[in-house]
Amino acid sequence: MDYVGRLERAREEMKKRGMALMYLRRGANLWYLAGVSRAGPELTDHNTYGDYIQGAYIGAEGGFTLVAPRMGSAGWTKQAEGKPWIEEVRIVDEGERPRDVMKDLLNGFRLRGKGVCLEERAWAHTALLFRELLPYSRISNAGEVLEPMRMIKDGDEVALMRKTGEITDKVYGEVVDTLKVGASELEVANEIDYRFRLHGAEQSSFVTAVKFRSPKYPWGLWGSGGPEPRLLEEGDTISFDFGCVYKGYCSDFGRTVYVGDPPEKVRRIHDVVVGAQAAAIERMVGGEVTATQLDSVARGIVERAGYGPNFVHRLGHGIGVTVHEPPFLYLPDDTVLREGMTFTVEPSVLLFGEWSARVEDVVMVTRKGGVPFSNYHKELTTI
Amino acid sequence: MDYVGRLERAREEMKKRGMALMYLRRGANLWYLAGVSRAGPELTDHNTYGDYIQGAYIGAEGGFTLVAPRMGSAGWTKQAEGKPWIEEVRIVDEGERPRDVMKDLLNGFRLRGKGVCLEERAWAHTALLFRELLPYSRISNAGEVLEPMRMIKDGDEVALMRKTGEITDKVYGEVVDTLKVGASELEVANEIDYRFRLHGAEQSSFVTAVKFRSPKYPWGLWGSGGPEPRLLEEGDTISFDFGCVYKGYCSDFGRTVYVGDPPEKVRRIHDVVVGAQAAAIERMVGGEVTATQLDSVARGIVERAGYGPNFVHRLGHGIGVTVHEPPFLYLPDDTVLREGMTFTVEPSVLLFGEWSARVEDVVMVTRKGGVPFSNYHKELTTI
Repeated sequence: MDYVGRLERAREEMKKRGMALMYLRRGANLWYLAGVSRAGPELTDHNTYGDYIQGAYIGAEGGFTLVAPRMGSAGWTKQAEGKPWIEEVRIVDEGERPRDVMKDLLNGFRLRGKGVCLEERAWAHTALLFRELLPYSRISNAGEVLEPMRMIKDGDEVALMRKTGEITDKVYGEVVDTLKVGASELEVANEIDYRFRLHGAEQSSFVTAVKFRSPKYPWGLWGSGGPEPRLLEEGDTISFDFGCVYKGYCSDFGRTVYVGDPPEKVRRIHDVVVGAQAAAIERMVGGEVTATQLDSVARGIVERAGYGPNFVHRLGHGIGVTVHEPPFLYLPDDTVLREGMTFTVEPSVLLFGEWSARVEDVVMVTRKGGVPFSNYHKELTTI
Repeated sequence: MDYVGRLERAREEMKKRGMALMYLRRGANLWYLAGVSRAGPELTDHNTYGDYIQGAYIGAEGGFTLVAPRMGSAGWTKQAEGKPWIEEVRIVDEGERPRDVMKDLLNGFRLRGKGVCLEERAWAHTALLFRELLPYSRISNAGEVLEPMRMIKDGDEVALMRKTGEITDKVYGEVVDTLKVGASELEVANEIDYRFRLHGAEQSSFVTAVKFRSPKYPWGLWGSGGPEPRLLEEGDTISFDFGCVYKGYCSDFGRTVYVGDPPEKVRRIHDVVVGAQAAAIERMVGGEVTATQLDSVARGIVERAGYGPNFVHRLGHGIGVTVHEPPFLYLPDDTVLREGMTFTVEPSVLLFGEWSARVEDVVMVTRKGGVPFSNYHKELTTI
């Protein structure tokens, strides 16, 4: 990965915007910019002495310090190995005041008259400390610099995202082959997560969603919770929505299965979503469509089929080192699609209280239309 | 759970401290205070329109609004059902500016001359928006109000934590029974995560750690990364560190296994950690010891056995709705232990490059010393 080039471009952009310093936590942005791995998902809050100042402090004119709490610092030191662009790992000992360490550190950058940018999802605690220590500095969001860079994937990133798609196809195929009447949503989801790791993924990219739906068990709200306790039976649609992370890059995938011989209604909504997705993918030509327009392409097809009110979410979202990232294929986003952007394309029809159908792939924008990174077939699978 | 009482106590404390408003995201604090579930772990960044103002806005003099992005709002609405203390769910539509929604909302609270507190791990983006919209308000950390409350567990919490401990014992027993030479660290860890969910846990409480160690494969740093690719073989110690979340409450557990007939050196370090843990647990009498002193009890035993430099982390940490929370059993914490506090007690000896031994349980402070919530035996297990 071209970390040196990315850092150089980010620093140029910071200088243009009058920013002297960028602060990032250990997460997607820092992985993208400097190859420092995520520390793994934080499943419930961790707490380590000094952790609210941990992260990367990157100067526009040079200077790159990783600040690490002593407990666990070995993991940070290891991440800095072989990365000459990281100039220092500053370990915070239990005998020091984190606030003083941060103050000293900030004094080492030339901040006078310049702005500072913080990762949007850094902690409030950290942001308020920046505000306190730098009362006269303009503080803005690091996304201004990083989001436009992250939108366009280079060749190395595309290669990883293809591989992430392959793992996803493989796991889905295995799980479909083992689906049995009597399984619970939780068991099927658990199996997906388990197999992702066996096939080399670091983790799932978001909480795996497996939904059994039929008119026999009326359901109402969309997105309203985790797995239901009921078991799979004949007459159900199974709606899959899941993805994994491989070497820091995400997939996001969806298909629909029917248990038994599908009624006409299920076939019809499935055809509609597959058709809407195909039409959108065809239009994913660099420079020729905006995010909102692409949403309208698919939404128009769903609406003309009479299911407009049943397509209750955006057509898709950018994806890369995080599962959801700009641009968003929906109303308020008029970004023009460019070659090398990668999106989920995921129309759905929810027949509230009855069945649902969805299909989803990660698709790259090219000169000739969209190229999917997952290739599992799109027929309505039946078991 | 006594949400009404907790909210009342939190509001009293806010008033004492001159705070008019508390802002919490959907996470441990909001679960503790108002029974709004975590949204599930965010494995990579989610992004929804308006998400940086989502969360709970809780007034000291009344007023409790959940702000939810439209996409996914059904999950928030469902959480508010049956909770009369939540007065309103305000949904942010794609047609609105989130900043304006927040501004309006803040106008509904009596903030003049009063402070506002934010959850420490709210997003920097949100914190900076609070700062911008309330330029003259004192902004502080919500932990000032919530941490002291969360430290002492009530009867309902203790019952859940006992149950979490039981699930943990059960999963560990099953996994030990299936351990086989030739397995990888990843496979064993994956099996633990998988079984937690089958036994009713929502998720693991942190990333499950399984470490194979022997002098045959020299290892150096502690805590420096995820699973190693090598396979389990005779002569290894296996070091377990894992936990789960059940109805929002966490466990954290550790044991050591040896493959084969343990050499004297391994028996010795195992005896040392078990002895150090037992001595500390005995001293966990309410009102009679501080966090630092308890650390010294265990550390003294490890030091006198000659392994001081091999015990490289704190003795333990508070645990409850998050896996690590104050107080911390280590140097800078002079909190007096009180009845109803719950801690991990987790001494270890790392013979760098050779073997390691650890033991860990969640233990409650009582009038008569510590009472563990996990009860798997502490002999050195061999396979």
